[in-house]
Amino acid sequence: MKLNELVQQILQKKSYLCVGLDSDPKLIPSKFKTEKDPIFSFNQAVIEATADYAVAYKPNIAFYEALGPKGWETLQKTMEIIPKEIFTIADAKRGDIGNTATKYAQTFFDPSFCGLDFDSITVAPYMGEDSVTPFLAFENKWAILLALTSNPGSLDFQLIKDESGKTFYQNVLEKSQEWGSVENMMYVVGATRTDYLQEVRKFAPNHFLLVPGVGAQGGSLEDVSKYGMNKNVGLLVNSSRGIIYAGEDTFISAKREAKKVQEEMEIYLEKYYEL
Amino acid sequence: MKLNELVQQILQKKSYLCVGLDSDPKLIPSKFKTEKDPIFSFNQAVIEATADYAVAYKPNIAFYEALGPKGWETLQKTMEIIPKEIFTIADAKRGDIGNTATKYAQTFFDPSFCGLDFDSITVAPYMGEDSVTPFLAFENKWAILLALTSNPGSLDFQLIKDESGKTFYQNVLEKSQEWGSVENMMYVVGATRTDYLQEVRKFAPNHFLLVPGVGAQGGSLEDVSKYGMNKNVGLLVNSSRGIIYAGEDTFISAKREAKKVQEEMEIYLEKYYEL
Repeated sequence: MKLNELVQQILQKKSYLCVGLDSDPKLIPSKFKTEKDPIFSFNQAVIEATADYAVAYKPNIAFYEALGPKGWETLQKTMEIIPKEIFTIADAKRGDIGNTATKYAQTFFDPSFCGLDFDSITVAPYMGEDSVTPFLAFENKWAILLALTSNPGSLDFQLIKDESGKTFYQNVLEKSQEWGSVENMMYVVGATRTDYLQEVRKFAPNHFLLVPGVGAQGGSLEDVSKYGMNKNVGLLVNSSRGIIYAGEDTFISAKREAKKVQEEMEIYLEKYYEL
Repeated sequence: MKLNELVQQILQKKSYLCVGLDSDPKLIPSKFKTEKDPIFSFNQAVIEATADYAVAYKPNIAFYEALGPKGWETLQKTMEIIPKEIFTIADAKRGDIGNTATKYAQTFFDPSFCGLDFDSITVAPYMGEDSVTPFLAFENKWAILLALTSNPGSLDFQLIKDESGKTFYQNVLEKSQEWGSVENMMYVVGATRTDYLQEVRKFAPNHFLLVPGVGAQGGSLEDVSKYGMNKNVGLLVNSSRGIIYAGEDTFISAKREAKKVQEEMEIYLEKYYEL
């Protein structure tokens, strides 16, 4: 998907909601458990319920991988029912080099390999340039680099300052912009602290940010919107559990929660977004 | 597998060779291509040829993932024919947090999920403690953390010095030892420069190192052995292409190349290893 198509969808739906498909056999309502492919049936209910309010879906690949070969079939089937105009993110956090990175890219980007045609994949930047550029070689596909995550362990390395006072995640933001552009690279930025978000925007004013950590993990959607928006809106805010596991009747509860988030986003778009 | 079992196997076989199963449908000899499962038949020939000389096998997960659901079946079948006493490494470079990391660990460590029972998995440390500890929760299983890799991009971030003069990879070595021990954690260390290997041994004198980058990528096996060995031998040196693609008759050529490396390792064990 191209940048302008994504932006257009956001402005049309008045939403920058990404729904995370962290679909777990143990957490889905019991009524799905008797279905032939419980996770697919659950995903189908979530997607039908939320497609009017979400601009992106983000299957968490670990959850499909853990189901073995069948999990990959479930993932393939899930991808087929996501409406074509909605942005898709393989949350795989892959990070390897050369021909190995190309294999990962082919897996998620080139349908002739696994039948998967994701728009983007999350990528771990530890190994540097040659672990990122293979993903950027695919037209209209995106690499979403881990920058500043919202987990407790993010403090271990991401905030270590170098000799010039720049933190590690700032080095990632700066260096990676030599490899890709605002049209094929985004960053994962946790929403736990607004001062970090302002820092991120200094180093990457124009890129889209994929923001987890709103809601359950403590970030405020209003703050994220206020400090994170740019001239392309520039935000995809993810919610997983708060939407997909909101109640026993998945269709009704997921629709209700997604709509609630979309309506809040509509307010912030009016308040903070300037064309 | 326990540490002492691995060390015992190394001393018995007089080898610390890890064979990388980067098995690519485009690179395997044509005679396998008419088999029902070409990659499995190829792996079978490699394993039968090298099991006397190798102490570890390292399937590169990207190569199986790119084949779709069938690739996971090929991986499962391959794991079943690896002799039980040989150490197995899922080269997956996973890195995610909390319940997602646990899913990745279950995928590769707990056979009740995908039928896979790897001894270890490679892990990217970017997200910190909570992206590593879920792998350490499994008994007799190992996390092999990326520390200093041998690719050109390793220069982008791993060698950035912090305010105290410590490089990022040294911070990874130091910090991670608070999370795991020599009995459940190893490090990936490229073999391109011996001064780095000496640095690594200052920060992690007792851990096993998984060393790629010998041979094709330019490192010297003698230097790695001289500067990398510790009281447990402490080295697994990987070779992939140099062994598995050494000739059209895979069994004969892989056996020949693996034996050659083992014999060289036997010399270095006599020369540099002190019990």
